[in-house]
Amino acid sequence: MKKHFLITAGPTREAIDPVRYLTNRSSGKMGYALAGAAAHEGHRVTLISGPCDLDVPEGVDFLPVESAKEMYDAVEHYISKTDIAIFAAAVADYRPASVPEQKIKKEADSLTLELVKNPDILGSARKKFAFTGTLVGFAAETENALTNARSKLVRKHCDLIVANDVSRSDIGFDSSENEVTLVYPDHELKLPKENKYQLALDIIEKSLEINALRQ
Amino acid sequence: MKKHFLITAGPTREAIDPVRYLTNRSSGKMGYALAGAAAHEGHRVTLISGPCDLDVPEGVDFLPVESAKEMYDAVEHYISKTDIAIFAAAVADYRPASVPEQKIKKEADSLTLELVKNPDILGSARKKFAFTGTLVGFAAETENALTNARSKLVRKHCDLIVANDVSRSDIGFDSSENEVTLVYPDHELKLPKENKYQLALDIIEKSLEINALRQ
Repeated sequence: MKKHFLITAGPTREAIDPVRYLTNRSSGKMGYALAGAAAHEGHRVTLISGPCDLDVPEGVDFLPVESAKEMYDAVEHYISKTDIAIFAAAVADYRPASVPEQKIKKEADSLTLELVKNPDILGSARKKFAFTGTLVGFAAETENALTNARSKLVRKHCDLIVANDVSRSDIGFDSSENEVTLVYPDHELKLPKENKYQLALDIIEKSLEINALRQ
Repeated sequence: MKKHFLITAGPTREAIDPVRYLTNRSSGKMGYALAGAAAHEGHRVTLISGPCDLDVPEGVDFLPVESAKEMYDAVEHYISKTDIAIFAAAVADYRPASVPEQKIKKEADSLTLELVKNPDILGSARKKFAFTGTLVGFAAETENALTNARSKLVRKHCDLIVANDVSRSDIGFDSSENEVTLVYPDHELKLPKENKYQLALDIIEKSLEINALRQ
């Protein structure tokens, strides 16, 4: 049975001034691989992506965004129309509290940047967007990956969290391979290290299994 | 007469923690065009570049760096061996004062990021690196472009500043075209809007003229 996937990908950029911004090391490879794998299997895919230097997979509805706020708005708009939402984007947790219209001059020897929390997209899926479909999140951690992933699963009412350790340079953000553990409400499943496309096929399959069990 | 060019390009990335960083919208296109144009004309080129998604021009000695501090060290090491230094990189002016080894958790509703000034690479060329060759800087401004460029020229003892207005979206950082004014110690020369490679050829030519006059 063909489903409609909503997939987020990439980093977000949080403007400090017209030229400077905060971001993170997400390459978008995992999210694009998920979108490509789901489309390849014949599913409908809406890909909401922060700035990435990747080709958009064929057959995917593509929505480019820049900031966490823009991604939040796009997800809010599309999520209710979809069956399975996979949030693979590395959304910036904080943004500058205010953004001047002109470039900040570098006169002072030090500078204090006040940051405020961005809206929590994954955490809003159930509570604010009232999404009842299958909800899959990612947890990129540098320590206590599984404990943090399980806590996220419970707090945000997810069906599955894909946990990975981004402190390792051979896997994760900028690499083509990944080694993850799937955290379910009642068990965990460690997948072998594999390329992101093969991993994407596995995650799509597991999401469809969860979705089928819920019907 | 063939010369040795040192060219810096791209943005720099200043780590906030293992996954987050500060950066800016520089694409590196201008610096890579300069390196390509100089190499094409038969000059020797050392290109010191922050993270860019661009192909390294043929025949160029390439030195990738990430942070402003790394770029500073690389320039310090190579500049005395070169005849003409063109600093086209958009070096981050500030970096976080301290960088935790683990990813910062997003528990607090707000966060204060303390930033300190990065070493001034262009300003160090004459004073700290004792560079006596031809020195060309860039000034990317969103207001008072020419006044700021002239002030930079004088303070940093440059032979030429290439000034452009990055508040315009049709030129500058992410675009393929640029429209700049060349600021000399005794006059200014506004160049027509042109693609970055043609502009690069013009800047290489003007740098060689200045270098020849000095001999």
